[in-house]
Amino acid sequence: MPMLKDPSKKYRPFPPLHLKDRQWPDKTITKAPRWLATDLRDGNQSLVDPMNGDQKWEYFRMLCELGYKEIEVSFPSASQTDFDFTRRLIETPGAVPDDVWLQVLSPCREDLIRRTIQSLKGAKKAIVHIYLATSECFRRVVFNFTEEESIELAARCTALVRSLTKDDPAQAGTEWAFEFSPETFSDTDPDFVLRVCEAVKKAWEPTVENPIIFNLPATVEVATPNIYADQVEYFCRNISEREKICVSLHPHNDRGCAVAAAELAQMAGADRVEGCLFGNGERTGNVDLVTLALNLYTQGVSPNVDFSDLGRVIRVVEECNKIEVHPRAPYGGSLVVCAFSGSHQDAIKKGFQLREKEGKAYDDYWQIPYLPLDPKDIGRDYQAVIRVNSQSGKGGAAWIIQQNLYLDLPRGLQIDFSRVVQDLAEKKGRELLPTEICDLFRQTYSLGQNRRFNLVDYSITPDRSTSPAPPEPGKTQATTGLRRVFEGVVSIDGVEFKLRGRGNGPISSLVNALRTVNIDLDVQDYKEHAVGRGRDVKAATYIECTAAGTNKRVWGVGIDADVVQSSLFALLSAASHFTPSRPATPPQDGAVNAQANGTDLINILEAKADEM
Amino acid sequence: MPMLKDPSKKYRPFPPLHLKDRQWPDKTITKAPRWLATDLRDGNQSLVDPMNGDQKWEYFRMLCELGYKEIEVSFPSASQTDFDFTRRLIETPGAVPDDVWLQVLSPCREDLIRRTIQSLKGAKKAIVHIYLATSECFRRVVFNFTEEESIELAARCTALVRSLTKDDPAQAGTEWAFEFSPETFSDTDPDFVLRVCEAVKKAWEPTVENPIIFNLPATVEVATPNIYADQVEYFCRNISEREKICVSLHPHNDRGCAVAAAELAQMAGADRVEGCLFGNGERTGNVDLVTLALNLYTQGVSPNVDFSDLGRVIRVVEECNKIEVHPRAPYGGSLVVCAFSGSHQDAIKKGFQLREKEGKAYDDYWQIPYLPLDPKDIGRDYQAVIRVNSQSGKGGAAWIIQQNLYLDLPRGLQIDFSRVVQDLAEKKGRELLPTEICDLFRQTYSLGQNRRFNLVDYSITPDRSTSPAPPEPGKTQATTGLRRVFEGVVSIDGVEFKLRGRGNGPISSLVNALRTVNIDLDVQDYKEHAVGRGRDVKAATYIECTAAGTNKRVWGVGIDADVVQSSLFALLSAASHFTPSRPATPPQDGAVNAQANGTDLINILEAKADEM
Repeated sequence: MPMLKDPSKKYRPFPPLHLKDRQWPDKTITKAPRWLATDLRDGNQSLVDPMNGDQKWEYFRMLCELGYKEIEVSFPSASQTDFDFTRRLIETPGAVPDDVWLQVLSPCREDLIRRTIQSLKGAKKAIVHIYLATSECFRRVVFNFTEEESIELAARCTALVRSLTKDDPAQAGTEWAFEFSPETFSDTDPDFVLRVCEAVKKAWEPTVENPIIFNLPATVEVATPNIYADQVEYFCRNISEREKICVSLHPHNDRGCAVAAAELAQMAGADRVEGCLFGNGERTGNVDLVTLALNLYTQGVSPNVDFSDLGRVIRVVEECNKIEVHPRAPYGGSLVVCAFSGSHQDAIKKGFQLREKEGKAYDDYWQIPYLPLDPKDIGRDYQAVIRVNSQSGKGGAAWIIQQNLYLDLPRGLQIDFSRVVQDLAEKKGRELLPTEICDLFRQTYSLGQNRRFNLVDYSITPDRSTSPAPPEPGKTQATTGLRRVFEGVVSIDGVEFKLRGRGNGPISSLVNALRTVNIDLDVQDYKEHAVGRGRDVKAATYIECTAAGTNKRVWGVGIDADVVQSSLFALLSAASHFTPSRPATPPQDGAVNAQANGTDLINILEAKADEM
Repeated sequence: MPMLKDPSKKYRPFPPLHLKDRQWPDKTITKAPRWLATDLRDGNQSLVDPMNGDQKWEYFRMLCELGYKEIEVSFPSASQTDFDFTRRLIETPGAVPDDVWLQVLSPCREDLIRRTIQSLKGAKKAIVHIYLATSECFRRVVFNFTEEESIELAARCTALVRSLTKDDPAQAGTEWAFEFSPETFSDTDPDFVLRVCEAVKKAWEPTVENPIIFNLPATVEVATPNIYADQVEYFCRNISEREKICVSLHPHNDRGCAVAAAELAQMAGADRVEGCLFGNGERTGNVDLVTLALNLYTQGVSPNVDFSDLGRVIRVVEECNKIEVHPRAPYGGSLVVCAFSGSHQDAIKKGFQLREKEGKAYDDYWQIPYLPLDPKDIGRDYQAVIRVNSQSGKGGAAWIIQQNLYLDLPRGLQIDFSRVVQDLAEKKGRELLPTEICDLFRQTYSLGQNRRFNLVDYSITPDRSTSPAPPEPGKTQATTGLRRVFEGVVSIDGVEFKLRGRGNGPISSLVNALRTVNIDLDVQDYKEHAVGRGRDVKAATYIECTAAGTNKRVWGVGIDADVVQSSLFALLSAASHFTPSRPATPPQDGAVNAQANGTDLINILEAKADEM
């Protein structure tokens, strides 16, 4: 059966609050709210397999270490595990840091409230949190209460909590706070919420120093987040004695907007947010505290909690909740500080290069395309940022090569190599690992162990046979005029060839020498840079050649401590795209030289090589 | 290293747009936008292992079946797989429905644009989508372009697309549309965006009938979603010839607010949304099209796409993307139409019961606590809604029993059974399956195969020994005055006992008979209801007893086609919580009867049983 073509009979649009003179859209968030982590209560109760006592213990300790100061630890009247866990926290010396509040939840029922408060006996700081259904749907369908009955019950239960806590001299060892949740706030007539809360406030009598917490749950998210913000602004503007009230948010994510709802409602005046790490909780979950905190951080606002070891947080959360953090979860997801697309990779690569060039420190202004957060801030590595699949362009593989082999490939070589990478990724039908990409690079350009062409022995000597005329008096000898002879042994696929060639310098003389085995290349481009620093510095040389008289382009790469040798290796690397054949006749040096003379580019390159 | 205590040097707050006279916060969404599914492009390129051709094919077909009319199928200039897939779609007869537009993406580069348009040759309806970086960060870090250079390039590339498509007579067989994305719109000076788009519009010359698509990407989400809405409203209000423009959104989810951004920006005037099913896409993903569509649906607005078989959609998406849909993903997550918490379960149960009682049909107004969407609308089952873990209250297990055994347990029995359920769930440390809960119920209350006490044979006869006086003339015999004798054989743990007892009716006579084996119960409560309908109807009886002279309460459950037998079974079920012992002396009927007489409740119950 298809979905209803016209769902307007079955579902009705949520009636918006027509808030006059709304202020929040012009506000920004400039400080962190008070956080309440309810992972151990709202999060835990919605798990397929709730945590055992030890898991709750480990989770609680982590929350304290992250910096949470208010932690809802249990629903003591609902399960023995929860009651026992609360007692264990209180009775174990040092388990609860002095500045951490333990919060527990109870429905508005006298017996359950008594049991709840029993569980807190001896706590240093405790928040008793009671809730009552106030929405029309709940009152009608679930409880069959009138508005007046609901108000009376809320006030009576508040008075009971008061008599059992701050008014009880036997409980004076504990610092007590009180929280009340009208459920589902987001679906309750805003004026009725005010009436309930005024009655509760009167029953509790909060002070400016110890404000009452009014928690305004979007128990179910029923509208766009701007409407929740309107509701919260309306509440903040109309509740009396605002200075004695902490307005708290408790958004759920049914419409996928819990984070937005929490942020807009903070702009609307709320002081506190309840949620869970990575948005665990009933159904679609509570609002995600990790995202909220790091959203603040990336706007330059300290969240007062520390996710610098986000990997550890993920491990604990996954172990306790038995739910994996989604690969695309903001900040925490494994694929989040990753770029597969070529243009993204390219931009990120340039951003990092510029940052390095500008000498920026870890805490300097961060502006890298596609990365709103420095991965290092959450304990992640730049290395992991760029990953290569069959859809990636040249930038990704180039970045991997740069990060792993320290080679800064010229643009043309990036394109050349990206084709090889893409072919392999398509063939394998999966992402390529950095090690695979590096291996592929070494193999494609005959580096290291993969060299097809090896220089066994060689010498490059001035060409005495065609020495130029001596310089005129007062002028320096032009180095470009000095011709060179390459003589040496090159092993090709394990067979040694004795080669000899003449040219303007080492490269062109080797070019000519190779022609004696019928490898005929024209050098088209040449780049070189240093790899490493100090005594271990090496030269990396990139040479682009065409097969003489064709458009076939090949690249060669050479690396060596000796710059000349590095360029010879690069040329042999380019040559290794071809197969040699033994010459029919001994090489004719003269003919070879004549050809080499025609290439202007080589002249320039040789000059450059000579100067180094 | 901890996170920066003061991150304000490294990260800066996004400067809000001070929009005068903003309109969107008072708007609501009253119709579905045009959708563009980019699963096969933006989604695919960000996969660890991108889809192969066959997977893209299957995914494309599914998107068509769901009702998507604009589908971005590839980035043809970036990979051969993408080019080939586009050709396959166009060249396979019937592959693309007549009303579906194929969209392809290209950067602003002439050679890539030419290749891109080659891939579309012969398509029925095609959208050429080009993008250009316009944000200051991109222009500076990545391209080193001035504003003027960017505008010139955008206009030139638009003119090129035009000359190769709608202006080329050879391409007249295709209906052409054009889309331009200024990247990252959300991070670009809003006035510069307008200048670029005006230049592009002039180069394309759109019409009211075939508007140009200006796609405004939050390529990276950099601020709260209200700011994106402000930017979009500013664009919509200030671009010229608004009627010739389709304003499109392309939100990413870096701050977890993509859904909110898409919704608020629709309120701000946008006409079209680009996204992916379940929010696949670079990093944190594109906006989730499933959530957006079902958010509309639950507000009574038809999304024009059909997710009535969401399970199938999930299977295809998971298979092609190799990323699991998160258990808490809105609408689609496996845990979303689930309630574990006792109070939630109780409310949902009551909601369903009320709906049934009110005789509501499938398409009648939906109002069930905690369930914003009828699970049936997305092909899910009510059965799966309630699940039971160690944190669940009485409601969950009761619901399972009701759904599976058709027993509507009285509140006291719900509480009694929930303790047993909770113990087992805590012991097992995991969720209990419905079959486990049903087995536990049968075992706890000695039902069916589990019966400890069996009625082998019995008779209930009028007690002649103590017949009341005959009725006065004209008055009916008071049935309560008629005493009964139970005589029968009860097998207890396999041992047969011959029992005899006298009482006001069958229950009290069996109560008395049981006293002869030292099982001494007082009946405290009694409920009965029909199970099933027509010829197969049975009676279910619930009896609450106390062990005589104590507060120990036990429940018994009996089910039988015969109402009398059902209540006897229920009593034996309650009795089976005790262990019988053989009587020292034969039973004294008189003494037993005297005791039974004292129980008012039993008199009433017997009267009721007699009437049935």
